[in-house]
Amino acid sequence: MNRKLRMGMVGGGTDAFIGAVHRLAAFMDNQIELVCGCFSVNPEISKESGKLYYLPENRVYETYQEMFEKEAQLPEGERMDFVTIVTPNFVHFGPAMMALENGFHVVIDKPITFTLDEALKLNEKLEETGLTLALTHTYSGYPAVKHARKMVADGNFGKIRKIYAEYPQGWLSGAAENEGNAQASWRTDPKKSGKAGCMGDIGTHAHQLAEYISGLRVTELCADLNTYVPNRRLDDDGAALLRFEQDATGILLATQVAAGEENAIKIRVYGEKGGLEWFQHEPNSLIVKWTDQPTQILRVGATMDSEVAAHNSRTPGGHPEGYLEAFANIYRNFALTIMAKKEGKQPTAEMLDFPGIQDGIRGMQFIDTVVKAGYDDEVKWVKFGE
Amino acid sequence: MNRKLRMGMVGGGTDAFIGAVHRLAAFMDNQIELVCGCFSVNPEISKESGKLYYLPENRVYETYQEMFEKEAQLPEGERMDFVTIVTPNFVHFGPAMMALENGFHVVIDKPITFTLDEALKLNEKLEETGLTLALTHTYSGYPAVKHARKMVADGNFGKIRKIYAEYPQGWLSGAAENEGNAQASWRTDPKKSGKAGCMGDIGTHAHQLAEYISGLRVTELCADLNTYVPNRRLDDDGAALLRFEQDATGILLATQVAAGEENAIKIRVYGEKGGLEWFQHEPNSLIVKWTDQPTQILRVGATMDSEVAAHNSRTPGGHPEGYLEAFANIYRNFALTIMAKKEGKQPTAEMLDFPGIQDGIRGMQFIDTVVKAGYDDEVKWVKFGE
Amino acid sequence: MNRKLRMGMVGGGTDAFIGAVHRLAAFMDNQIELVCGCFSVNPEISKESGKLYYLPENRVYETYQEMFEKEAQLPEGERMDFVTIVTPNFVHFGPAMMALENGFHVVIDKPITFTLDEALKLNEKLEETGLTLALTHTYSGYPAVKHARKMVADGNFGKIRKIYAEYPQGWLSGAAENEGNAQASWRTDPKKSGKAGCMGDIGTHAHQLAEYISGLRVTELCADLNTYVPNRRLDDDGAALLRFEQDATGILLATQVAAGEENAIKIRVYGEKGGLEWFQHEPNSLIVKWTDQPTQILRVGATMDSEVAAHNSRTPGGHPEGYLEAFANIYRNFALTIMAKKEGKQPTAEMLDFPGIQDGIRGMQFIDTVVKAGYDDEVKWVKFGE
Amino acid sequence: MNRKLRMGMVGGGTDAFIGAVHRLAAFMDNQIELVCGCFSVNPEISKESGKLYYLPENRVYETYQEMFEKEAQLPEGERMDFVTIVTPNFVHFGPAMMALENGFHVVIDKPITFTLDEALKLNEKLEETGLTLALTHTYSGYPAVKHARKMVADGNFGKIRKIYAEYPQGWLSGAAENEGNAQASWRTDPKKSGKAGCMGDIGTHAHQLAEYISGLRVTELCADLNTYVPNRRLDDDGAALLRFEQDATGILLATQVAAGEENAIKIRVYGEKGGLEWFQHEPNSLIVKWTDQPTQILRVGATMDSEVAAHNSRTPGGHPEGYLEAFANIYRNFALTIMAKKEGKQPTAEMLDFPGIQDGIRGMQFIDTVVKAGYDDEVKWVKFGE
Repeated sequence: MNRKLRMGMVGGGTDAFIGAVHRLAAFMDNQIELVCGCFSVNPEISKESGKLYYLPENRVYETYQEMFEKEAQLPEGERMDFVTIVTPNFVHFGPAMMALENGFHVVIDKPITFTLDEALKLNEKLEETGLTLALTHTYSGYPAVKHARKMVADGNFGKIRKIYAEYPQGWLSGAAENEGNAQASWRTDPKKSGKAGCMGDIGTHAHQLAEYISGLRVTELCADLNTYVPNRRLDDDGAALLRFEQDATGILLATQVAAGEENAIKIRVYGEKGGLEWFQHEPNSLIVKWTDQPTQILRVGATMDSEVAAHNSRTPGGHPEGYLEAFANIYRNFALTIMAKKEGKQPTAEMLDFPGIQDGIRGMQFIDTVVKAGYDDEVKWVKFGE
Repeated sequence: MNRKLRMGMVGGGTDAFIGAVHRLAAFMDNQIELVCGCFSVNPEISKESGKLYYLPENRVYETYQEMFEKEAQLPEGERMDFVTIVTPNFVHFGPAMMALENGFHVVIDKPITFTLDEALKLNEKLEETGLTLALTHTYSGYPAVKHARKMVADGNFGKIRKIYAEYPQGWLSGAAENEGNAQASWRTDPKKSGKAGCMGDIGTHAHQLAEYISGLRVTELCADLNTYVPNRRLDDDGAALLRFEQDATGILLATQVAAGEENAIKIRVYGEKGGLEWFQHEPNSLIVKWTDQPTQILRVGATMDSEVAAHNSRTPGGHPEGYLEAFANIYRNFALTIMAKKEGKQPTAEMLDFPGIQDGIRGMQFIDTVVKAGYDDEVKWVKFGE
Repeated sequence: MNRKLRMGMVGGGTDAFIGAVHRLAAFMDNQIELVCGCFSVNPEISKESGKLYYLPENRVYETYQEMFEKEAQLPEGERMDFVTIVTPNFVHFGPAMMALENGFHVVIDKPITFTLDEALKLNEKLEETGLTLALTHTYSGYPAVKHARKMVADGNFGKIRKIYAEYPQGWLSGAAENEGNAQASWRTDPKKSGKAGCMGDIGTHAHQLAEYISGLRVTELCADLNTYVPNRRLDDDGAALLRFEQDATGILLATQVAAGEENAIKIRVYGEKGGLEWFQHEPNSLIVKWTDQPTQILRVGATMDSEVAAHNSRTPGGHPEGYLEAFANIYRNFALTIMAKKEGKQPTAEMLDFPGIQDGIRGMQFIDTVVKAGYDDEVKWVKFGE
Repeated sequence: MNRKLRMGMVGGGTDAFIGAVHRLAAFMDNQIELVCGCFSVNPEISKESGKLYYLPENRVYETYQEMFEKEAQLPEGERMDFVTIVTPNFVHFGPAMMALENGFHVVIDKPITFTLDEALKLNEKLEETGLTLALTHTYSGYPAVKHARKMVADGNFGKIRKIYAEYPQGWLSGAAENEGNAQASWRTDPKKSGKAGCMGDIGTHAHQLAEYISGLRVTELCADLNTYVPNRRLDDDGAALLRFEQDATGILLATQVAAGEENAIKIRVYGEKGGLEWFQHEPNSLIVKWTDQPTQILRVGATMDSEVAAHNSRTPGGHPEGYLEAFANIYRNFALTIMAKKEGKQPTAEMLDFPGIQDGIRGMQFIDTVVKAGYDDEVKWVKFGE
């Protein structure tokens, strides 16, 4: 394509958190430019933000409704191609649906919507329009994670038996929501976050990562959810025993009260012949263990020699990549897919390798299932999605 | 005491595995000498073993019954003080009970007996005789583990919320029991091992470590047990959600099919203010995390400055200790306790810090509970010990 | 400033290596846009590259001379603000000097020039013009490195005694220059690389990092340089004993024949009261050791709470940053400095915290000194810069 | 042999440090028993120590001279077989020579003597008597170190190019010798320690480890020695550039003022095809790197499958061994050698694999060479041993 892809943004003002990450990730590869936005419910902040992002005033809108309407009226050579939605969960569905209705592709934060029903509606609209949606399950964007998935798919470890996914955080060990922490505030508010707290925020990441790498879907689970901080309104901790397709089993751990932990998402997968371990704090290494030979450390850019790892990496071996590059991989593959389609080409499997609406639906089902299971002391196993 | 403590041994011939570890641990501190034994059901192996251990022929016995009877008749200045029992599980109770009946203290491998009932009988006999029993839950012998327990007990982390104990092994990923591996053979045989395989062998270790460090007892659990290798007769894998006293919760993971893992026992405990992590592969470090200051690496012999760590350590900081020293700590504290008693003194708390009959009973209850819970898809929570 | 900074580029075509890294780093923060370039000595590659970078054809030039001349004639609102020079060492001075003569700021790869004399001339021109030059000693761009520098400067460790800087690579273990590796080819060619191979390429990084963190300058050194691969024309390995100001001493190790190593640059600094360790493979951690308290792991975004670390970081704690973000910090601070100047403001110390001409001169002096010392078996200590 | 080997001891009273380590190491394998000793220059301490070690009073001597004379007169079935000498350096030669003259084998701490000349005299006496001497260069007792040596010898890495040996400690960062630290006191006293401080104490370890693993001997070196703590009388810090046989080169670092470091001895060796890394803090792992395949972690007892690693290991994989087991390997191989000789057998290569008089001589030459080189700013390279 002879021009960059044009991005609009809902949310992500200077007072927000994840919006900045989205922009960094989007701009890095010089394929995407920001052309418009509605950055805040506060018009002053939105305006100020637009200025800082070097936007002309007329492309900074007061409401997302206004944005979609006006952008849709702009000539093709000018209007945005896609919108990035980085608002709290309860403001996901509205802008996403309206974007699709107005012909814009969508990048959106997880969990995809407030309810499963909304996710299913987005799916219908996507099928109807043929538009593309990317969901920022960032951890599946790491090259080492993609290489891990490939090793499993290629049968290196034989049939998979065990999958342990964990995501311990400690930032909600105290009542941060009462101390002016805006992130903590909406994430622990069922009206803004949805029916799950910890499980929606980070449990969904662990679940998506487990299914992404193993290629196996959870079929039923048995869970225990807790709220450790007094007066908190949603779960801040939980764990689940998992059963997957093809007789694999595992554990999912997600907690926000593991005092002192940062974003220690980690996954281990074992098959008949070997296993793997990936940990976000050292994201460029994939530890691979075998029943019949020494443990290996595969390294992005060096000894992790798959095409998928190379395609999703930007530096020579030993020059570490991180979270922003993983995030950028989602944007890049999403952008490559759209560009290919615009040029009338079929996107390659590598281009299509980013989380989308199906991950979104699985994520909402995970929330429903784990919440149902997690507070019921009588029923042990709950079928996934039921 | 003006002489070493005299040890006899049941099991531990040259064809055995854990017996050698017991001897290394017992001899290291120059407090204990081997004076007699019945090292094998095969008298030839027993004799040959006795020779290699520098025993006179008349102190190598054909049966443990013979040993206890004859040793009991020897003069006090000659006969053994205690016996170490290192036979497969189904030959624990017999020699242990007979040893107690004949006035000998006991060191015994875990799980303490074949059934809970046997453990309770040993308890009665111990109370009746006033003799001492040590159970080799080795991991609680590490100085860093003892320091961890102390930090929790001292309230450093506030009220404890989360306890994650895991013990992944990979050595039973294949059908080792069919390939001439004697260890695999008896450990997967319900007639020799008991009602649990993996959970009895290593699940009990994870459970004991969790209760030892946290000072909290499991009150109920929800489990899922599996047998991954075809035709294996006992569980080779499992996991449990745990509920502890005082509202703590956690996870226990024990598996022998985590292909490529060695003895990767690890524990993490989190309270309101911080948490700790200990991993056997780096046993001299205790990672301590905090909500309000940087993560610390406490090191045995250096910055782990409790008396309990010092008492259970033998080298200057930076000169790593390992499994044998942890094992030796059980022997040393057990020996110090007996010696103190022989001298009419009250053993100190440090001397008494070794696993004993109560750990044995808890272990048998754990096996009963986890097996009951692990195969029942209808009942979610099973009360511990019921 | 109400617009992005405009970048031109010399080198960095689609066939090049480090140019892509520069662009990623420059674009990430949405402060800089590429407006023109002369990307290759091969005009076809240059044109093709320009297209891929979304440049109009008239801003892709055949020679850098043409570029500087034509850009200089464009109106202020259109012409580039600065040029990034990413050619092999022997094509550094020419474009850099011409850029300055035409009023453009410069970003340039290290080593800054082919000879020390050229570096001194650039310095004169910079002083004369008041323009700004940034030198991409990337490792000093890591937030943990900047925090380390601050801890030393704040006196946390007392007077500094020891500085160990090492940069082992393994990629030149074989004769890669004979196997079609373009990077290996020019880097081992004295006509393109200069008088040093390994020491110029990575020894300079280790030297700059040592001086940057410690705040101390090398005063004399004693070196041994080697060429291990037969027929290679420059050093591929070396080491030096270092003497610094204020009685600190240390070691510098740089090698390209440490088979199997990636870019394992690491530094350790010890003072009277404690020390620090930073290693590129885990760049978000700073290990801090003390004589009187446990070792600490300080983490970017979490427990590394200086303003300088925060200013140079883009993600929340536990979401790792890497090489590209370190690189981007140089661009960002450089851009902030220029923007401040354009607005008539004094750049803050944080803005000015990027390597520049003085680092370039020190680097060239390092090369001269280490080469002089490294092949002379008679003279032990060579004064730095003599 | 149908009895244990009988050990006497010079030094190692209850007030000493390394003596306890020797006893732990000697007793662990049940091959050696302590039968006599002269544990201190203070007869009271010596007596008290003997009691605690369960010795009869008549085998605790007031002087080592008395001990050797009286023991020599005891019948073969009673007298000691060998003596362990664990006194400060200046009391090494006297008892060692007298032991040999009286027909006793010797285990002795490093550095072997006070001067090179004494070491050469011991060598003569050993050749004359055919007795055996073991020198406790502990680090070469680790199974992973022995496996490393074997991998190099087997040519796995091709021709060796680089050897980096380092031993940083921090315990002498302050003037511990003035604060009642007995270890610090004699080790910094040239009358007791010899002509080197840090280099004699730990530099010798790094040197021995480098030669042991690489199989190459240092031919010349260039050094810089320092004394950082005011009024200290010997070096507390230093480094050397090394040249080995067969064109290998390297670095040796030894310091006692790396504040916060414990006993962080580490070695890296690189050849044409790969390299290895061993670090005492994780002694059961050997990191092996390759030019053409992923880095491997070889583990003692698991994937480190040489006979030499197995012979020098006591636990199953994943149950870590440590410093005491490495130390015990020296005792065990020494004891096996003597026992074989007593039985008229030729000791195997595995039995003979312990440091001895040749290591002692090399060590004394290292001290002489590094001291000569380390204070001479004019002469760059000093031939080893000249």
